[in-house]
Amino acid sequence: MAHARSHIGIDLGGTHVRCARVDAQGRILAAERRQTSQAGPEAVMRQMADLVGRLREPGTRGVGIGVPGAIDAATGTVLNIPALAGWGHVPLAEAVSRASGLPCLLENDAKAAALGEWRAGAGRGCDNLAYVTVGTGIGGGMIVDGRLIRGIGGLAGEVGHTHVTDSSEPCACGRYGCWQAVASGTALAGRARAAVAAEPSSRIAVLAGGEAVTAFHVAQAAREGDERALALLADFARLLGMGFANVQHCYSPSRIIMGGGMSALFDLLQADMASALRAGLLAGFPPAEILAAELGDDAGLVGAAMIAAEIE
Amino acid sequence: MAHARSHIGIDLGGTHVRCARVDAQGRILAAERRQTSQAGPEAVMRQMADLVGRLREPGTRGVGIGVPGAIDAATGTVLNIPALAGWGHVPLAEAVSRASGLPCLLENDAKAAALGEWRAGAGRGCDNLAYVTVGTGIGGGMIVDGRLIRGIGGLAGEVGHTHVTDSSEPCACGRYGCWQAVASGTALAGRARAAVAAEPSSRIAVLAGGEAVTAFHVAQAAREGDERALALLADFARLLGMGFANVQHCYSPSRIIMGGGMSALFDLLQADMASALRAGLLAGFPPAEILAAELGDDAGLVGAAMIAAEIE
Repeated sequence: MAHARSHIGIDLGGTHVRCARVDAQGRILAAERRQTSQAGPEAVMRQMADLVGRLREPGTRGVGIGVPGAIDAATGTVLNIPALAGWGHVPLAEAVSRASGLPCLLENDAKAAALGEWRAGAGRGCDNLAYVTVGTGIGGGMIVDGRLIRGIGGLAGEVGHTHVTDSSEPCACGRYGCWQAVASGTALAGRARAAVAAEPSSRIAVLAGGEAVTAFHVAQAAREGDERALALLADFARLLGMGFANVQHCYSPSRIIMGGGMSALFDLLQADMASALRAGLLAGFPPAEILAAELGDDAGLVGAAMIAAEIE
Repeated sequence: MAHARSHIGIDLGGTHVRCARVDAQGRILAAERRQTSQAGPEAVMRQMADLVGRLREPGTRGVGIGVPGAIDAATGTVLNIPALAGWGHVPLAEAVSRASGLPCLLENDAKAAALGEWRAGAGRGCDNLAYVTVGTGIGGGMIVDGRLIRGIGGLAGEVGHTHVTDSSEPCACGRYGCWQAVASGTALAGRARAAVAAEPSSRIAVLAGGEAVTAFHVAQAAREGDERALALLADFARLLGMGFANVQHCYSPSRIIMGGGMSALFDLLQADMASALRAGLLAGFPPAEILAAELGDDAGLVGAAMIAAEIE
């Protein structure tokens, strides 16, 4: 009997290593996760080899790994992972390939997620799409003319750190004015905390119940019709839409797919994001359709497996 | 005797139609120009057919046309040219091909110039480069992973109209905050005029001699060591370098090539542009090398011919 073809996707994160076996249509057939070892690359590579060994089947053809940092895709080398110590110039693909006997490719994690949404999510059939992940930060992966663009170090699409404003709180990167500094979930939560400090009896404060206010408390208050929360979200959506206009000028997609934790707020943001996108576009750019990602946290896993499928 | 292979490049501009026969190395063998007919597309297409007829030789294999607007490259249709009336949905490639009997392809003009610099100018041998033209406006053409990226309507790379600041004079597009509104030659000239109005005896004013102050008067005063002019150029270079950092985050090139009229000021701007680029980059992006374009006004012509060479 012929074995059904499958590929392994690995999503290397600062807290978890996730691994899945994925079929040719991008469906997850089986998945496991481990807390990411903080003992350095060798230990993490052993975790990966173990997970691949547990999940592979006779029809498994290769392994793709999404990496939260800069890589050299041609040599399969991790150049730098800001969130994990000791990951300068690590030949990760070769190590996993040697341990598993399967071919292995690397991809930047946001790009892997873009590929997942393109092949199996909200981007199916669309050859020009921008995937923008909005969570604690903002990242991106761009499909242009039917290809995932990478650039030097696989860093093309790092739109979260483009400078878009003269006035912002400091960004996580230490600079000012980044899109991420004003339009990430972190930025929204910061503005919500300031609002709560100014008005401690507000609905947002009540929902937070003494815990740190997050974007999700704002969303909950907004769904109850709270004016303050609705105003915070309208402003957040405007800042996202402004950045989507930049994304459209840069890559000219027909769809912009919003992923990441903040995509849970998509229905609350959609109309204002679309207005801001239209307002920000040069004549001659029909506005891209803004869609919520479909695969959620699995986009990067599925996309990493799709990278592996490219080997053949 | 075998005829040497060549291609025809056409650069369609608001004021001139330029045409050249170009060899496989990107050298211009012969060139002519005409004032662009304002009588509409039919008249311009006759100009193009006439120029192709004059310049073609037996070894000429095809025609490429750079268009200052949106195109559908797949069908060879001009979608919209802001600077010329009547150019909505014009099947330009088919018309020129029928008149000349040669295959014909279209490209956006900034992208054609990028291709010219890539194949025959400052970008030779570099598979990740950003070409940014800085003149009255700012345009761009991006080579990523060894391919010119196009996007819907061939509009990818329109970095001049990305929003980068909260405070600007109005942009030519009617909006505020575009990179072009603060870092084009027009923007520099505007700031120089304000400086001259405040200080009518300044060296810049003397050089302008009662004519409208331009960026070139500023450059001339700066070359003479004028402090006011040097300060204006330092600020201009900072704004260019800030935008180059955005370009690098978006496309991750190893070279950024500056073309357009302002590239005549390259030596005056280079050090400050490089500092601003470094200051604007996220950790993990080694700064791209910033270079002046080599082909000047001919980049678009040569690149259009290179487009034609792609047909084969």
